[in-house]
Amino acid sequence: MAPEIDHLIKVFSFLPGLGERSARRIILHLLSQRQSKMETMLNAIQQVLAKIESCRLCGNLDASSPLCSICKDPNRDRKCLCIVENVSDLWAIERTKAYEGIYFVLGGTLSAIDGIGPDELRVNALTQLCKGGSFSEVILALSSTLNGQTTAHYLKESLESLVFKITELARGVPMGGELDYLDDGTLITAIASRSKL
Amino acid sequence: MAPEIDHLIKVFSFLPGLGERSARRIILHLLSQRQSKMETMLNAIQQVLAKIESCRLCGNLDASSPLCSICKDPNRDRKCLCIVENVSDLWAIERTKAYEGIYFVLGGTLSAIDGIGPDELRVNALTQLCKGGSFSEVILALSSTLNGQTTAHYLKESLESLVFKITELARGVPMGGELDYLDDGTLITAIASRSKL
Repeated sequence: MAPEIDHLIKVFSFLPGLGERSARRIILHLLSQRQSKMETMLNAIQQVLAKIESCRLCGNLDASSPLCSICKDPNRDRKCLCIVENVSDLWAIERTKAYEGIYFVLGGTLSAIDGIGPDELRVNALTQLCKGGSFSEVILALSSTLNGQTTAHYLKESLESLVFKITELARGVPMGGELDYLDDGTLITAIASRSKL
Repeated sequence: MAPEIDHLIKVFSFLPGLGERSARRIILHLLSQRQSKMETMLNAIQQVLAKIESCRLCGNLDASSPLCSICKDPNRDRKCLCIVENVSDLWAIERTKAYEGIYFVLGGTLSAIDGIGPDELRVNALTQLCKGGSFSEVILALSSTLNGQTTAHYLKESLESLVFKITELARGVPMGGELDYLDDGTLITAIASRSKL
């Protein structure tokens, strides 16, 4: 096999969710329609490389710089800040169209095992932001995992004195969730936090 | 989300084996290490686009042009031709290092349902090649599927008068195959074609 193809397969095989075999399949697919598909991909990557930057304020990835289109949007509620672990979580919340405030991308969660402390995350920038902007609410939209909850606890302690109200996402039975298949933790929370019909 | 990112995710989501969600995960992974990973991918694609061509003789994809490195190799047995459906099958056989002849990539199989007849494949070029080169053996290394076997039958009829010997790959129990899990067709063939120990 030509070393150029071999190299391209290697590059793809290191992508999350792909391996050597699936990468080979993708490259052969691309090679079979070189002019259309491969050049389209090349152009799309070039466009992203040329235009996409991290927002200086929230950390979102966007073509508008130095502030992203959410941070620049005058219709957004600048008194409400939603803290997310990463950009994909931000996009997930944006897709719901249920939130109208602004965001802050933390860059991950605290993790003792992986040696990730507050200095590895954007905690400092977050504290500065909360000191400066007088937020009426800070939502900790972190994962419901051990690391996510450790981080939420840590952020609560750090930000408590700086902001008016700190909230977290509701916990309970997910839409379409069958009780039988739910883990005990979720069921216990759902019972404890039951609401009046 | 920036339209550039959205477009790149779309491009990736149409790749075989990927969907919208896995494409998004890949793009976020690439964006998180833009300088290293994304530019490496860009360069790898550019290299392939610039250098890789279809071999004029066999149809293999290679950086050497107009003939691929297999067709050019003086150590290859030019009397033996292995007909494969596509380039990935050629690469699969090459990886075994068990074959020393040359190849011919058909470009698919005959398929009544998909409207693929001999004119959609490289059957004409194959017939010309067999008329010109006096092959001592032509191996039909086609899939053991309905379309693959229809194609093999068709090619046998077309090439019979042109070449000395036409062979097909052996059928039977695959390595590591447990009889219990094999389909009946394979078992029946394996019993009928049993060999002396």
